Amino acid sequence: MKFKKILVTGFDKSNLDENVWKRINKLTNHVVLQPSNDVDCLFSRFNKVDKELINSLPSLKYIGLLATGTGTVDLDHAKRKKIVVCNIPGYATESVAEWVFGLILDHIRELKRAKQIARKGDFTGNGFSATEILNKKFGIIGLGRIGQRVAKIAQGFGAHVSYWSRNRKKNAEKEGIKYESIDNIVKTSDFISLHGLTTKETEGILDAKRLNTVKPGAVIVNVCGMEQVVIPALEKRLKKGDFTFILDHPDEMKPEDVKRLSKYKNCIIYPPIGFVSQEARVLKQDIFVSNMINYLKGIPINKVN
Amino acid sequence: MKFKKILVTGFDKSNLDENVWKRINKLTNHVVLQPSNDVDCLFSRFNKVDKELINSLPSLKYIGLLATGTGTVDLDHAKRKKIVVCNIPGYATESVAEWVFGLILDHIRELKRAKQIARKGDFTGNGFSATEILNKKFGIIGLGRIGQRVAKIAQGFGAHVSYWSRNRKKNAEKEGIKYESIDNIVKTSDFISLHGLTTKETEGILDAKRLNTVKPGAVIVNVCGMEQVVIPALEKRLKKGDFTFILDHPDEMKPEDVKRLSKYKNCIIYPPIGFVSQEARVLKQDIFVSNMINYLKGIPINKVN
Repeated sequence: MKFKKILVTGFDKSNLDENVWKRINKLTNHVVLQPSNDVDCLFSRFNKVDKELINSLPSLKYIGLLATGTGTVDLDHAKRKKIVVCNIPGYATESVAEWVFGLILDHIRELKRAKQIARKGDFTGNGFSATEILNKKFGIIGLGRIGQRVAKIAQGFGAHVSYWSRNRKKNAEKEGIKYESIDNIVKTSDFISLHGLTTKETEGILDAKRLNTVKPGAVIVNVCGMEQVVIPALEKRLKKGDFTFILDHPDEMKPEDVKRLSKYKNCIIYPPIGFVSQEARVLKQDIFVSNMINYLKGIPINKVN
Repeated sequence: MKFKKILVTGFDKSNLDENVWKRINKLTNHVVLQPSNDVDCLFSRFNKVDKELINSLPSLKYIGLLATGTGTVDLDHAKRKKIVVCNIPGYATESVAEWVFGLILDHIRELKRAKQIARKGDFTGNGFSATEILNKKFGIIGLGRIGQRVAKIAQGFGAHVSYWSRNRKKNAEKEGIKYESIDNIVKTSDFISLHGLTTKETEGILDAKRLNTVKPGAVIVNVCGMEQVVIPALEKRLKKGDFTFILDHPDEMKPEDVKRLSKYKNCIIYPPIGFVSQEARVLKQDIFVSNMINYLKGIPINKVN
């Protein structure tokens, strides 16, 4: 079984490695960039795949997403038309988990300033201090794939790790990761890292009430979307200057919100590059092609609708 | 038992916290900054305590070093005069071990550049790539206290950890840390971290022959002195531009050597601030005072001569 024709939208040749295109070319005789009536497979990344686009492709059977997020696709409409949609979950787990510790260590060890003064020839190290991760309380909100890897790495550093998640994770608890209420985690942790999906339950989970209880000196890392944080409440607490908030999804925020938070020295903003490891890129492409092969075999995996 | 008079050299009041001075004041009635005949206790940090200084203090019984290194003190001469010298080993183990991962992550995740472009409002993340620590080979040369903590943290990241050390460490091997020859470690590791003491055996341990075998893409971190590295050989290999060397003791190098290495983008230089954590500072001072108390009790610990 092969696809008749693949339509590529939302990305270009460079988003997939050459050897991956070779594998894809074995699954079809036609890869095109313009819609046509015989397109039965659609590639998409972050672009909108709405009712209109779907309806314009009468032969469409399969949508392959080169991404984890599915919010760009009208999943219900695809389902009604019996079109299978597959995404790529979990490919960047390790890349993001290690990134979190980069963000934390950069902050607590002042790596940027250290490198700058060394470049100027100042090797005294005067005025530097740091805090250790060893024996600190490390709270994880959302213990999915990434949260679990963050927990494991934090344990390597000798931190005491607690978590809250929608569901209890007994296996993790056997490994010494303690379940606690969100309120407790926010109030008592030295480091807090957010890794839950944004749902009705987690939207605005860091609200004024909770943010006010954060320990002075604590570091909060949010590599999820900022929907889980009430921005005006965060700004109010940042003003006190007694804790640090690190985020890496300014691209998904309202520009005026980014601007407001940028004013605060204790709010550190990174671009959204947690997922960029070479290993994640290879894995992502591999899952992308495997999804196609499995669909063609009639046993689709990573189906999201 | 108390000291008659303590002479402080090589540091000032600010190097010890107030509560520590309080504890010290219980151990003597006189803390002075000028030598005199009845000084029986000498405080020193990185300053020279040579034959001349020792001979100028006829009542001297005890030298308390606020440091780990003892190279500044004429230990033999002190021994001949039955003066006990105590140092502070291991206080910064965790601080240095965590620092090593800060240096590695800053490099492999380009944290500095990421923060800079985000500050300019570029949130695309274009052009960033990274490598993961997971499943990489992490070689440790010198498996003392710090090396063992680095090994443990690397295991948390999911690296395969090997070590070479003067003596086999069976306990570490039981924890999955594999013993290998230096040659093998240098040749096959993705990350190499140096943690051995500089002895005749380890001086120049990274010589031209070994440096030439380092894997392209490898990252070497040296938070020990640079005596273990043959600088001209390092420079030659740096020129090839295919690996990265990170060091943090430029203060102990010849200025012309620092200058030579600074030219290379793939040689990253930090000031010597691995030890600066607050926790290390508290522990250091605590050991410093404990050393004095134990000496006065007649059961000296951390005696180095």
